[in-house]
Amino acid sequence: MRILLINPNTTESMTAAIEAAAKRVASPESMVRACNPADGPVSIEGYVDEAFSLPGLLRIIRQNDGQWDAFVIACFDDTGLDAARCLTAAPVLGIGEAAFHVASMLSNRFSVITTLSRSVAAIEHNLARYGLAARCGRVRASEIAVLDLEDPRSEARASITAEIRRALDEDRVEAIVLGCAGMAPLAAALSAEVGVPVIDGVAAATKLAESLIALGLQTAKTGPYARPVAKIYKGQCQADSF
Amino acid sequence: MRILLINPNTTESMTAAIEAAAKRVASPESMVRACNPADGPVSIEGYVDEAFSLPGLLRIIRQNDGQWDAFVIACFDDTGLDAARCLTAAPVLGIGEAAFHVASMLSNRFSVITTLSRSVAAIEHNLARYGLAARCGRVRASEIAVLDLEDPRSEARASITAEIRRALDEDRVEAIVLGCAGMAPLAAALSAEVGVPVIDGVAAATKLAESLIALGLQTAKTGPYARPVAKIYKGQCQADSF
Amino acid sequence: MRILLINPNTTESMTAAIEAAAKRVASPESMVRACNPADGPVSIEGYVDEAFSLPGLLRIIRQNDGQWDAFVIACFDDTGLDAARCLTAAPVLGIGEAAFHVASMLSNRFSVITTLSRSVAAIEHNLARYGLAARCGRVRASEIAVLDLEDPRSEARASITAEIRRALDEDRVEAIVLGCAGMAPLAAALSAEVGVPVIDGVAAATKLAESLIALGLQTAKTGPYARPVAKIYKGQCQADSF
Amino acid sequence: MRILLINPNTTESMTAAIEAAAKRVASPESMVRACNPADGPVSIEGYVDEAFSLPGLLRIIRQNDGQWDAFVIACFDDTGLDAARCLTAAPVLGIGEAAFHVASMLSNRFSVITTLSRSVAAIEHNLARYGLAARCGRVRASEIAVLDLEDPRSEARASITAEIRRALDEDRVEAIVLGCAGMAPLAAALSAEVGVPVIDGVAAATKLAESLIALGLQTAKTGPYARPVAKIYKGQCQADSF
Amino acid sequence: MRILLINPNTTESMTAAIEAAAKRVASPESMVRACNPADGPVSIEGYVDEAFSLPGLLRIIRQNDGQWDAFVIACFDDTGLDAARCLTAAPVLGIGEAAFHVASMLSNRFSVITTLSRSVAAIEHNLARYGLAARCGRVRASEIAVLDLEDPRSEARASITAEIRRALDEDRVEAIVLGCAGMAPLAAALSAEVGVPVIDGVAAATKLAESLIALGLQTAKTGPYARPVAKIYKGQCQADSF
Amino acid sequence: MRILLINPNTTESMTAAIEAAAKRVASPESMVRACNPADGPVSIEGYVDEAFSLPGLLRIIRQNDGQWDAFVIACFDDTGLDAARCLTAAPVLGIGEAAFHVASMLSNRFSVITTLSRSVAAIEHNLARYGLAARCGRVRASEIAVLDLEDPRSEARASITAEIRRALDEDRVEAIVLGCAGMAPLAAALSAEVGVPVIDGVAAATKLAESLIALGLQTAKTGPYARPVAKIYKGQCQADSF
Repeated sequence: MRILLINPNTTESMTAAIEAAAKRVASPESMVRACNPADGPVSIEGYVDEAFSLPGLLRIIRQNDGQWDAFVIACFDDTGLDAARCLTAAPVLGIGEAAFHVASMLSNRFSVITTLSRSVAAIEHNLARYGLAARCGRVRASEIAVLDLEDPRSEARASITAEIRRALDEDRVEAIVLGCAGMAPLAAALSAEVGVPVIDGVAAATKLAESLIALGLQTAKTGPYARPVAKIYKGQCQADSF
Repeated sequence: MRILLINPNTTESMTAAIEAAAKRVASPESMVRACNPADGPVSIEGYVDEAFSLPGLLRIIRQNDGQWDAFVIACFDDTGLDAARCLTAAPVLGIGEAAFHVASMLSNRFSVITTLSRSVAAIEHNLARYGLAARCGRVRASEIAVLDLEDPRSEARASITAEIRRALDEDRVEAIVLGCAGMAPLAAALSAEVGVPVIDGVAAATKLAESLIALGLQTAKTGPYARPVAKIYKGQCQADSF
Repeated sequence: MRILLINPNTTESMTAAIEAAAKRVASPESMVRACNPADGPVSIEGYVDEAFSLPGLLRIIRQNDGQWDAFVIACFDDTGLDAARCLTAAPVLGIGEAAFHVASMLSNRFSVITTLSRSVAAIEHNLARYGLAARCGRVRASEIAVLDLEDPRSEARASITAEIRRALDEDRVEAIVLGCAGMAPLAAALSAEVGVPVIDGVAAATKLAESLIALGLQTAKTGPYARPVAKIYKGQCQADSF
Repeated sequence: MRILLINPNTTESMTAAIEAAAKRVASPESMVRACNPADGPVSIEGYVDEAFSLPGLLRIIRQNDGQWDAFVIACFDDTGLDAARCLTAAPVLGIGEAAFHVASMLSNRFSVITTLSRSVAAIEHNLARYGLAARCGRVRASEIAVLDLEDPRSEARASITAEIRRALDEDRVEAIVLGCAGMAPLAAALSAEVGVPVIDGVAAATKLAESLIALGLQTAKTGPYARPVAKIYKGQCQADSF
Repeated sequence: MRILLINPNTTESMTAAIEAAAKRVASPESMVRACNPADGPVSIEGYVDEAFSLPGLLRIIRQNDGQWDAFVIACFDDTGLDAARCLTAAPVLGIGEAAFHVASMLSNRFSVITTLSRSVAAIEHNLARYGLAARCGRVRASEIAVLDLEDPRSEARASITAEIRRALDEDRVEAIVLGCAGMAPLAAALSAEVGVPVIDGVAAATKLAESLIALGLQTAKTGPYARPVAKIYKGQCQADSF
Repeated sequence: MRILLINPNTTESMTAAIEAAAKRVASPESMVRACNPADGPVSIEGYVDEAFSLPGLLRIIRQNDGQWDAFVIACFDDTGLDAARCLTAAPVLGIGEAAFHVASMLSNRFSVITTLSRSVAAIEHNLARYGLAARCGRVRASEIAVLDLEDPRSEARASITAEIRRALDEDRVEAIVLGCAGMAPLAAALSAEVGVPVIDGVAAATKLAESLIALGLQTAKTGPYARPVAKIYKGQCQADSF
């Protein structure tokens, strides 16, 4: 089973951490690799970063279609998930989506701890659209910037732990979803520390991708995820024409 | 990874078919077994059958707690799922729930084809509760009794195919969920025949169970799935006291 | 009008209190009796207790079908309500459901005060399914065990009063529903004390049952509440075959 | 128990029919009377008729406050229900509301058969607001004007029966709510004819009113149904000042 | 473009303030006038006041139909909006509705600051019915009576500012809707003071009315807003017959 | 008032048609211009086209920030609306959003007629997110490609008219929203032909933009539409760094 994780930002150290998190849980016989586009923002914090990461992300899907059995979009906003699904019949999973589905099978209600408050609304909209908003107590911001998660001198882990404790006190939830790919390395330690399931989307999506592959199932191609119609793309996007 | 599938009805041939369906998709290193209670209805068609299958089902969970890494409840109504989760820290999955989550990751909208119309409301309530009702076009009954699915002389497969085609024509959906454990053997052939993803919950739950085990995640025990408090059960249930 | 209230737990003192609460409000010409199964948990606190109370509860319905004009399930979780409705054409009411409907006719929004926090989720799911979740400010736990409600030395009433006051302060509600059959004797005194309508489901269901009988209406039998199909039940449930 | 039903239109023959329908189901010891305002439309078909019936309706409530144990607003739109509740502590029930609650205790899903299609949206909004929209398959118009219901030469009953049959064929429902006070005399015959519960709101509200009285419960006065603040009303409404 | 704003209460100083607020934003070529009925309450605070203001309000619409290009109902409850739409083909806007639509185009989520807590539920119901409830963090009462807004000695502005600050602190919103026509003169100053968009419905509705006129669009007359059918109105309402 | 409409596709004839449609309704004193990016797809039909149009669209917003009083995104999917709002304090409107708000002020329920069925899901998700899904009967595809709308030999207008008639027959709606900027020139003629309000989003957004400008209101900048944080964009996007 060949699974390609795409970190839609351009920070290679984060891509490496994502690949490591995926490999920790992947089956030994799976081939798991993470990559990132050369073009785009160094981190995705809000709608504008999301938008500028899309062409790079989608070009990776398109160029790799047929060579991998599943794709994972390793940004918690599930950046470009709908568009990516149009470009391949292989399953495509977002790490946000994967984490929500896993949390829904282990708990009645969960809260999400993400990075900056500007990202909260986008995650809430995803939850509503997937149908899982009623399963979520609250989407909380720890106010740690994405790239600070990698900085060993930062207070990142302490801030996240504090926010998890507030969620457990106030939100009437019994599980936690970590709302950023950059938090993947922390999941196991946090779960041990706070005593409730703490779910990382990178690991969750990797295992769900393996599941979909083993089930022999592919993305539905007769509805909104049908392949794009033939069409001219102009200017800088000319090479992206169909 | 040790996964126990529990067919909550008492028809052993169906249990064997469920085990076979699970084994077809399980990892080679997984130990997968299906069992059923000795007490209860020979098939589950409606709320009364569901209720009488519960004690047998839950006793199996309780007796096997600690010996398996995950449990699957192999009835599409997700019979007893909440109660089962209270009796073990291991993940417990319902095949209905598993199928809905998988379908949600492969399509925008799906329809469900179940057996008798009396079961439609229970499935609709589950979808609403899980949050995935908006992802479902319609829950349709093929009006085939559960045990007739095993009868090679029956029109079962033809009726199910016809109902799938009606769903694709009328429901604006692009994937199909098979709404009965007894339909598991048909999924692959039906998918090939109708050209859209056809999802069987037995296979789906088996793979998702493996995923949750590999992720090292367990059922949240601090909320509604906390273990039961010590308590006397009287009469026929005396041995079930906590 | 003959109304049978079924306390699905096996504590006879609680059954007697339920019968007394029902008789306090019943019409003089009604014959009201409460009973409980011989088999099952002494109190219902969570999903497992609910499940093990079902066979005893349903056998009572089945054996008494035709002899009573309506049935009331006297547990606030509305344990087994759907299944019970399949076993008789007589109206069947849950005390949770009855209390929610009554509260909806007297107030814009109400809160529920129940026993243990482990029961909150089940009540929330019932509210959502009945459609009345938007009418409910919050389901609150007083953290009193069901059987402690009967203990005159316990702090039960004081704890419930305190929780009601918190609900009125924080939930923007103007009525209270008592979330346990064991709280029935307290309703009138609490209402006088806090100055808002305080609704007990046992009394509410008794009067609504009388209403449905007088209206000459019965449970719809052409949909999910159709009588069970003929079927073999095995083992301990053999006598329950249809 | 003294119950006043208010027909908010000014057609006295309809008021008499409403009183008769209420008396058919009321307890012998209840005193049940119906009245109507002298001012306002002869029938209520749409938002404008509703609006002009309000002052007459509310004056009746205000003048009769303290003299009756409960009030019923006998128009299926539940005209003025919120305002009426502000003017008395006695319970006030709308016949639409009462019918929806009763139907919800006897069936999983019901459809409504009303008079003109212009009234459908108002009923749908009430269902949504009460929370019971998901219990309703469809609100259907029979296209019979309210006052034609009283005309023995009209096709009213045949049209309603035909619309009920369409509802049972197409809406996946197993009970019917009659959506006009003027249909009250038809309920029993229609139920016998079509074989499912057919619910008339006049009878339903009368019995629910008796229930609320017997429960000793009153309308919550600390929220939106608090009594009006002292205030000058000018012109034609001067006498309505508080 | 001729726009008539109707203040449904009978306080002429408030009508003048509404006209001034509308003129501040209207196009120079628009003819904007405000009026109020001679009959009815001096302010609208709760359901009863709303009901008694309706006949006067609707008579104004009816008498002015054909002479104005659009109507605005200048009460934040959107009193009589549905009925008014039945009486003219010209667009009719409520100031509550207009404010919610405008806030939805400028922010992800907003809170509403209204006058008395008794009005909160009616506004919440409007939000739910329009579909915009999920866009609203909370409807808050400042506990200032409508007519006190006009009193320069009152603490009105200070109280509203304080409540806005609480909304920004607690409700996770980034815009504010002022929930009373009487607050119109305060909007600009409050927005400057608190640094987020503060939306007044009078101004919003005036501009949206101009927009609908310029678009050449009228109220749909084939559904629930069809003109009333011919009908006798009796007594005090005789002149209102159709 | 200076309003810039951005056609996010690269077909200049369509941009010209959009500018013409906007100018037909704009105030004489408004300066209205339409433009399109040089880079990207010639039409937007589905998620992939949407994604590749974003960088070009957002660069236009960024370069023009401060020079226009409002922006309109002239694609019915409201492509990039959230991201665009982060890049300017001026109001930004999507034509889908604008059409839905206008239709909600003129009718109880409307249907949408769009181009290809692959676009239906995206429009449905927007409706759900804006909160207006309950106002929409159905999103219908006419199966006309976007660029065929410009071809005078095509059957476009006949197909759209036929689909509108089906909507009015089947969807219980009384207004129609045209679901593509390319349909703007047809709105007036279609409305005359079918006799119900037919709403074009280009015109609607132009007038709503003028309204927001006249109200002196701007996009909320303290929540999810806050300006992007300073950040490096790499590769092809280097010039887009903040």
